[in-house]
Amino acid sequence: MNKICIIGVGLIGGSFALGLKKSLHKFQQVNIVGFGRNEANLQQAQALGVIDTYSLDIAQALSGVELVLIATPVNSFKNILELIKPHINDNVIVCDVGSTKGSVIATAKEVFGTMPAKFIPAHPIAGKEQNGVIAADGSLFSNKRVILTPTDNADTQAIERVSECWQALGARVEIMNDKTHDDLLAMTSHLPHMLAFSLMDYVIESGSNALDYAAGGFKDFSRIASSNATMWRDICINNPDEIVKHIAGFQQSLDKLSSLIEEGKAKEIEQLFINAKTARDDWLNE
Amino acid sequence: MNKICIIGVGLIGGSFALGLKKSLHKFQQVNIVGFGRNEANLQQAQALGVIDTYSLDIAQALSGVELVLIATPVNSFKNILELIKPHINDNVIVCDVGSTKGSVIATAKEVFGTMPAKFIPAHPIAGKEQNGVIAADGSLFSNKRVILTPTDNADTQAIERVSECWQALGARVEIMNDKTHDDLLAMTSHLPHMLAFSLMDYVIESGSNALDYAAGGFKDFSRIASSNATMWRDICINNPDEIVKHIAGFQQSLDKLSSLIEEGKAKEIEQLFINAKTARDDWLNE
Repeated sequence: MNKICIIGVGLIGGSFALGLKKSLHKFQQVNIVGFGRNEANLQQAQALGVIDTYSLDIAQALSGVELVLIATPVNSFKNILELIKPHINDNVIVCDVGSTKGSVIATAKEVFGTMPAKFIPAHPIAGKEQNGVIAADGSLFSNKRVILTPTDNADTQAIERVSECWQALGARVEIMNDKTHDDLLAMTSHLPHMLAFSLMDYVIESGSNALDYAAGGFKDFSRIASSNATMWRDICINNPDEIVKHIAGFQQSLDKLSSLIEEGKAKEIEQLFINAKTARDDWLNE
Repeated sequence: MNKICIIGVGLIGGSFALGLKKSLHKFQQVNIVGFGRNEANLQQAQALGVIDTYSLDIAQALSGVELVLIATPVNSFKNILELIKPHINDNVIVCDVGSTKGSVIATAKEVFGTMPAKFIPAHPIAGKEQNGVIAADGSLFSNKRVILTPTDNADTQAIERVSECWQALGARVEIMNDKTHDDLLAMTSHLPHMLAFSLMDYVIESGSNALDYAAGGFKDFSRIASSNATMWRDICINNPDEIVKHIAGFQQSLDKLSSLIEEGKAKEIEQLFINAKTARDDWLNE
């Protein structure tokens, strides 16, 4: 590739760019241009060597580009896609890094009428607590899963090119249906976040001084309640059905445990705890 | 004090003993004897300098003792109290480190007929992931809260002596009603553990490969699901009413969030997340 455009040069977009520069020779010569609204951020990204150049003009940023990575919050996708639509042709590969995939595909269909064959949605399952291009790290995706959710009409070559890019960063690329992705992530990521946010909400609403007596376990458990509120609002708005479904499913598991405690079923309680501990320990040892 | 007996020389009992040896001169000369069923463990405790001597004979272990610390699992308390009852007089101070306090007091009343005036229940809010005397640490309680839940008939001097011991270890001693303790801890410790155990149970029961796609947030959130199953079974058995109550209260908060997501109430969702994040960040910065 000769030219790649990163729209939204933050932690994820910047790490993608940095990683490509440091990776396989085929990417070392690529010209990476950043596009965004905040020139100071783009200047910083250039000073950090994350991007080669930048432009505040979308036409200029996309001129002669072969691949566009959209790395802005999911709720901005409609505006971004409408912004780039006039300036890309059918040969340009478009990909993203949104946390929800069904909504990205729906938005693309809405803007383009049909899902562009070379739009390959992706979700890298990686992150950091820090945000912004200052935290960009070329090895952020090393040995991390990146899920691609191409639609049925997706261009095979485009899928291969996007896979190559992520693999060049050391990522383990997997391809799955967007519904499957949104279901799996709702269970392993969205649900735990909802539980952590709700626990804090419950403690706050109780109005008690209970937090004065919270210890290390509470700290770890609630860490994800300190996640970015806007990003998580957007995830809720973009994957509501799956999140609500898994909250309901979880409530049943919690009801079951509550009944065991109410009935003093010591053996069953211990077995449930042993199974939970074993499953987690096995997962960590994988 | 001249002689203290530690019943159950594990992480907590051992850390209490080690801390006293390293603390104020008034405790340095105290003879700390360990009692337990496992001689190898007591030999190790002695070799580590955690206890001065040990005995497998309760009469010998308690002879001439001024304070007895019961640091065994809560479910063993009935047996332990029946074991020591014939060998202690009204002058001996008894204290414990159980995670639930109402049940400890109920057991003591059951065994002694009435709550002994010099039995001062305590709960140090401190711990480690490692178990056993090998993990004993004299500074484990430094700057940690220790809650005493003396009953109305408690001997004031006994409360002062027990407070002195914990303060000598650097702990911040607080006195409260056992019901208040069990209610607060059910919210800040027992509830989060139930949520973590239930989340693992839900994921296991789903039979999906979802854990393959779990990331760092899930790891932190579920860490407490790797806690000791027997200890947590005992906590459930000994504080069922408060745990069930707080599970029900939490479920209302979770239902509220679920409804907001179902109705796409973006502003309310974001505000809930902001409040949760703020409360947690404030708590951490205290």
